[in-house]
Amino acid sequence: MTKIKVLSKSNIKKIINLKMAIKAVEEAYKQKSDNKGEVWPLVFYEYEHNVFDLDIRSGNLKDSNAYGLKMISYNENNSKISIPVINATALIFNDRTGEPLALLNAETITSYRTGAAAAIGAKLLARKNSKTLLIVGSGNVAKYSTAATLLLFPKIENVYIYNSKRILEKKELSQFKKEVESLLKESNSSLTAKMNSVKDIKEITAMSDIIITATPSEKALIKEEWVKTGTHFSCMGAGTPGKQEIDERLFTKARFFADDQKQCFDQGEAQYAYKNGLISSFDGEIGDLLTNKIEGRTSDSDITIFDSTGLFLQDLAMSLELIDESNKKNIGTEIDL
Amino acid sequence: MTKIKVLSKSNIKKIINLKMAIKAVEEAYKQKSDNKGEVWPLVFYEYEHNVFDLDIRSGNLKDSNAYGLKMISYNENNSKISIPVINATALIFNDRTGEPLALLNAETITSYRTGAAAAIGAKLLARKNSKTLLIVGSGNVAKYSTAATLLLFPKIENVYIYNSKRILEKKELSQFKKEVESLLKESNSSLTAKMNSVKDIKEITAMSDIIITATPSEKALIKEEWVKTGTHFSCMGAGTPGKQEIDERLFTKARFFADDQKQCFDQGEAQYAYKNGLISSFDGEIGDLLTNKIEGRTSDSDITIFDSTGLFLQDLAMSLELIDESNKKNIGTEIDL
Repeated sequence: MTKIKVLSKSNIKKIINLKMAIKAVEEAYKQKSDNKGEVWPLVFYEYEHNVFDLDIRSGNLKDSNAYGLKMISYNENNSKISIPVINATALIFNDRTGEPLALLNAETITSYRTGAAAAIGAKLLARKNSKTLLIVGSGNVAKYSTAATLLLFPKIENVYIYNSKRILEKKELSQFKKEVESLLKESNSSLTAKMNSVKDIKEITAMSDIIITATPSEKALIKEEWVKTGTHFSCMGAGTPGKQEIDERLFTKARFFADDQKQCFDQGEAQYAYKNGLISSFDGEIGDLLTNKIEGRTSDSDITIFDSTGLFLQDLAMSLELIDESNKKNIGTEIDL
Repeated sequence: MTKIKVLSKSNIKKIINLKMAIKAVEEAYKQKSDNKGEVWPLVFYEYEHNVFDLDIRSGNLKDSNAYGLKMISYNENNSKISIPVINATALIFNDRTGEPLALLNAETITSYRTGAAAAIGAKLLARKNSKTLLIVGSGNVAKYSTAATLLLFPKIENVYIYNSKRILEKKELSQFKKEVESLLKESNSSLTAKMNSVKDIKEITAMSDIIITATPSEKALIKEEWVKTGTHFSCMGAGTPGKQEIDERLFTKARFFADDQKQCFDQGEAQYAYKNGLISSFDGEIGDLLTNKIEGRTSDSDITIFDSTGLFLQDLAMSLELIDESNKKNIGTEIDL
């Protein structure tokens, strides 16, 4: 008989915040850089293309003495029957014995760790004096990425939100703002930047210091010729074959960093640039920046790209933080297994 | 918020039995044969060769509207600290929505489904009038395989148990017998066969109608020239590269059936025969026998081999049976996730 901890979605909502997520995700990236965090092969299965698919991501963090997996599914049909479109469940194990440690609803974790990754990319690669942030996309990933980036760049003055289908309505913009405010509040911060909806993406691209892409797009939404020197991109949307958000020609002149080289080349934002031989400079993995093994931005005129495909190691590090925190606060359920 | 069912090891022990396991495993094999059950790629990771490794097996059963995964680890070091050497945890999902349905301790399930597979192989391929059963191995898989086979072959008169390291002591034989009796009792059956320990494996091989191999051996324990015509083999021990229990030359003259063709060729009992081009007749998958797509034994003189590498589909079908049964009997815990 083993005892394991169960953390439900509502348990997790009580203790999770973006500050914790940023710390955990940096820890995951660092361990990966030090060969202590390994990404195991992805299992992917489609019930219906672009409607219902799932993947199993797994890996370990040796310095944290843990390994685990996450089953995440996307089912568009659920929206018709008031069931979450995304379901995510994580199982965490003790790497000294192999015993299960915890079961977590990983849906919220996925949002926080993805937002944290976007912000870490910007922190490590964008110009320190960045004032203008363009968010391509207006969904969940966009909201979490905005809040996490504002947390690390409190001097950003303007956030521009772009919805690729139509200009964001006032009501939607206000809802976006409200959610970002609430995410910042959880980390004892507050919103000072002005939130704007984008009318002309070309014009705003040319004005932006940081651009975060967070859509399920399958074609480039940002053209190479619109981008000014010095711009940083955190590309969050691409993580499966066929996805693309920015012009592949940007890779011919940008310094380019991956969360995982293989994943980015195979199924990340870089996939088309890689296939077409357009990557002029692959500069390493994001973790290697955190462990000071490689150099990031070298001048104010560099264009930098962080391609984030999403690693289970991020979920694992967050899960471990949440387990610790829940133990301290006596949150969650212990069950016999 | 999702509600899921948790079935602990002790919950499962109250409702599981070999009759249920045989029914579930046949259902899994049948769905696989009808292209309703799919085996997804295996994730395998070794912390220390032959000491601590783990795998993630996954797949779906479309006619049962479910998919899932099992994390199973083997850690020899655990025996020194009184923790189970094998830890297995299964997560089951609803294939209409992607929502998690249940979390199960899968250790017991693994034993029952493996024993059931050995017996199903014998039921479909061994001579109906089989009287003598040789069990190579004396551990857990050996016990469950013996009990399941006796359940389906009540006319077996003698069971011979072979321990490759030394002749089984009286005390061990009596313990083996006790456990088999208890497994038979769970399925409302009783032990009538005589249980013997093997002194001379060559002599007993030549007398046996059914031979079940259930060891972690990495070299053949049964020589080709010892085997009489008409013998059936259920090979349970090999499921990872490097394992072998029977002489690969047996494949030159046997009719050979797999639980999964690819898995058997890559990492099953057949791996060496396959590599060396010794398979004279690959006759199909076990599920195709159950759905009458192929022919099994054609005469009393056939030597038949069933190579069982173990499929998650077996665990999945068993898990679904256990969830149903636990709901009827009000066993287990419902938790919010």
